[in-house]
Amino acid sequence: MWGIRLIYNSEISLSRQIFLSFMERILTGEIKQGEALPSTRELAKGLGVSRNTVCEAYDMLWTEGYIVSRQGAPSRVANGLHIKHKKAESPKDKKREQAQVLWDFKTGQPDLTHFPWQLWSQIMREAACELPIRELEYSGPKGYEPLCEEIAQWLFRSRSMEVSPEDIFITSGATQAIRLLVEILHKDGQPFALENPSHPGIRTVITDKGYPLLWMPVDGQGADISILKDKEISAVYVTPSHQFPLGGILPARRRAMLLSLAIEKNFYVIEDDYDSEFRYSGAPISPIYSMDSSHVIYVGTFSKTMFPALRLGFAVIPKPLQGKWKHYRNYMDVQNPVFEQAALAKFLQKRKMDKHVQHMRRIYGEKRNILLSSIEHTFGPSAHPWGDDSGLHVALQFPGMEFGYQFVRDCRETGIRVSPLPRYCLTQTEHTDKLLMGYGHLNHIQIQEGIRVLHQLIKFNNPQV
Amino acid sequence: MWGIRLIYNSEISLSRQIFLSFMERILTGEIKQGEALPSTRELAKGLGVSRNTVCEAYDMLWTEGYIVSRQGAPSRVANGLHIKHKKAESPKDKKREQAQVLWDFKTGQPDLTHFPWQLWSQIMREAACELPIRELEYSGPKGYEPLCEEIAQWLFRSRSMEVSPEDIFITSGATQAIRLLVEILHKDGQPFALENPSHPGIRTVITDKGYPLLWMPVDGQGADISILKDKEISAVYVTPSHQFPLGGILPARRRAMLLSLAIEKNFYVIEDDYDSEFRYSGAPISPIYSMDSSHVIYVGTFSKTMFPALRLGFAVIPKPLQGKWKHYRNYMDVQNPVFEQAALAKFLQKRKMDKHVQHMRRIYGEKRNILLSSIEHTFGPSAHPWGDDSGLHVALQFPGMEFGYQFVRDCRETGIRVSPLPRYCLTQTEHTDKLLMGYGHLNHIQIQEGIRVLHQLIKFNNPQV
Repeated sequence: MWGIRLIYNSEISLSRQIFLSFMERILTGEIKQGEALPSTRELAKGLGVSRNTVCEAYDMLWTEGYIVSRQGAPSRVANGLHIKHKKAESPKDKKREQAQVLWDFKTGQPDLTHFPWQLWSQIMREAACELPIRELEYSGPKGYEPLCEEIAQWLFRSRSMEVSPEDIFITSGATQAIRLLVEILHKDGQPFALENPSHPGIRTVITDKGYPLLWMPVDGQGADISILKDKEISAVYVTPSHQFPLGGILPARRRAMLLSLAIEKNFYVIEDDYDSEFRYSGAPISPIYSMDSSHVIYVGTFSKTMFPALRLGFAVIPKPLQGKWKHYRNYMDVQNPVFEQAALAKFLQKRKMDKHVQHMRRIYGEKRNILLSSIEHTFGPSAHPWGDDSGLHVALQFPGMEFGYQFVRDCRETGIRVSPLPRYCLTQTEHTDKLLMGYGHLNHIQIQEGIRVLHQLIKFNNPQV
Repeated sequence: MWGIRLIYNSEISLSRQIFLSFMERILTGEIKQGEALPSTRELAKGLGVSRNTVCEAYDMLWTEGYIVSRQGAPSRVANGLHIKHKKAESPKDKKREQAQVLWDFKTGQPDLTHFPWQLWSQIMREAACELPIRELEYSGPKGYEPLCEEIAQWLFRSRSMEVSPEDIFITSGATQAIRLLVEILHKDGQPFALENPSHPGIRTVITDKGYPLLWMPVDGQGADISILKDKEISAVYVTPSHQFPLGGILPARRRAMLLSLAIEKNFYVIEDDYDSEFRYSGAPISPIYSMDSSHVIYVGTFSKTMFPALRLGFAVIPKPLQGKWKHYRNYMDVQNPVFEQAALAKFLQKRKMDKHVQHMRRIYGEKRNILLSSIEHTFGPSAHPWGDDSGLHVALQFPGMEFGYQFVRDCRETGIRVSPLPRYCLTQTEHTDKLLMGYGHLNHIQIQEGIRVLHQLIKFNNPQV
């Protein structure tokens, strides 16, 4: 009957099936404008459904303007409904077979097997039960107030930072903080200053918006600040406590110069403190923020101390920028969901974070020792680790060697993933003798075996190793 | 001793207190470059602490480059550390006394008192316990796969839409979806077409980026599409099932014209289906997406059906745009947190959503009836509601009257919040006889009382009412 096929055990009602069937054929032009539809009685009989079902379908067609009807006359198809179809092409599937990664030295991955999941689910549940209903409405772009307070105390306990909870803004991880700051701090025609090398993600956030970059060369101690002396910049992004990826600590003199320039030229310093919780020798490095908070925006994340899918980070925003921050966050995604915020506040308040970080520092410290002794034992003086005092990765230098894309492919085919450092550089011709290796998520055997396999691969081209 | 005051029961260690004290005074220039620090023995004695404590503090000063030391010689302050301070000014506090809002007819607020919180906390906990660890790492910008599958089925059950889970991308609410789409769809110099009136937030997302706008006038049936005929545009944003804020249903003929133009001129239609779950008379309106999915991006949200602080929405993205979407999302905030996604997937899978939406439709339907009968009873023929067939708000027209800012202020002082429609318009001179009133979150008494108070205020200037 009119090409309508009804499915009786469908989750879509019979009347809607009739509606959809007519709609489809009106749009394709199969049923033409002005054409009369069968009467409801006739169609009901033909389809073997109640007349009521057909009336409902015709009501839908009428409400949405597919048919016009006048008292007494049959319903007719409205004008101008035929769409000449043109299908969009799908991009080709680019997947190809790859060897399994057995030793994955990728960076930025914490070890999640030691996280107290049982406790966390318990705290999530408690937090969910205790939340007042007003917190489940829109609560604005600043973040859950008790979490801001707990973070302020955590920064005091762990980093000796004195921060007012009023200045702490919750974000979906550090990425979002940096993304927002790039929008807020951009000044027409003035570049953002970045360390070279640095994380490619930061660069992409800036270049995606078409903003220019200014590169600061990095040595064993971090960025060379003096390059900023005669420049006008939008802002500068630095990783002063553990330069990513080379691992240097920016010395006080460079910090002081950076702050003096920031004050003199009125730009802001974005301080990304991405993994300072895990320092294995000596006391924690103080953030630049503690030296002068007026021109520093401190960005922290819980992706490494907790886990990445938590999507919680924060930024300490100077008062003059807070209005703009709120505006941009509001029109980006409004705010973070509230449950993780409430649970993390509880986790901090019960001092579970302190315990967990202390526990993980010991575990990562052991992994680091295994890694360094494996390197020492396997490569001897051919390899030199950079930035191994803290964090979850090292940069490994092999003086006199060069690692190109062919080497990475060879590694990948053998089941090992490492990143050559040029990927993080302005040009692909710098730091060609270094590999970046994340080890935090690997177990002792994976680390030892990975280094052994890496040695074989390197030895193949460099028999002297 | 050297102006250092130690606090013994602080959470900051004594050695760090000594470090911070020196750091502060070196940076302010109080202790000058080249100046010798006291010997560790001398300072330990003076402060009454162990020598070890002082050595630790000096180690920190040395590691961070505040002092230089040579074997045998005293530690001296490094050069170039003095920062000439300049404090940033804080913006003035603009808070002022306002009367309490007793009858708040703001829009976009669901009623959260009927949400099954107990069940939700239970499901959150279950979801948290069951999540495999790999889901707690970075899992990419698409979204939690089981949630995409459940949303596909939910769209089929509730909207008769046939969508592949592959094309569903999870977002932090509809705002983020629109924000991303504006970046992805922008073509140089070509405007985004918007309904006039429309939600000011959408406009702001576009104008914040400096992109131009093209306005489509709206009548009782939704947007006038014909204006797009001779224009080149980046994309068009529409609310076809329940025009925001006027409430019209875009008729099939205009939909067909929109799709024909989209195909011919190769632009995308952003379909925001923000509250179609709550329709009180007749069957649900079909989305434009069901007419032709190649040029339509369907955007949905759970802020109204669930609650705003959940921050979960989604977009159905055509294949040719998926690569760009992933890129931009990756550098915006990477992904949503996983717990809400896992819990919502379970909530959908157990059909709790179906039950909850059905329950709320009845509750909102009752509120709508109370509102409409209060309006009818209080204002009689002086007031005419628009778009009351679905959603959580109505536009209320008072033919011949005009509502300016003074009226809003008078309302606010009496404890009532309403939005005059010109706020949603291109110019402030259109729809001046209409007020927008959200009622979903109010109880019956608040609705009745609110209308009564509104009547008094309107009567004051318009005695004929």
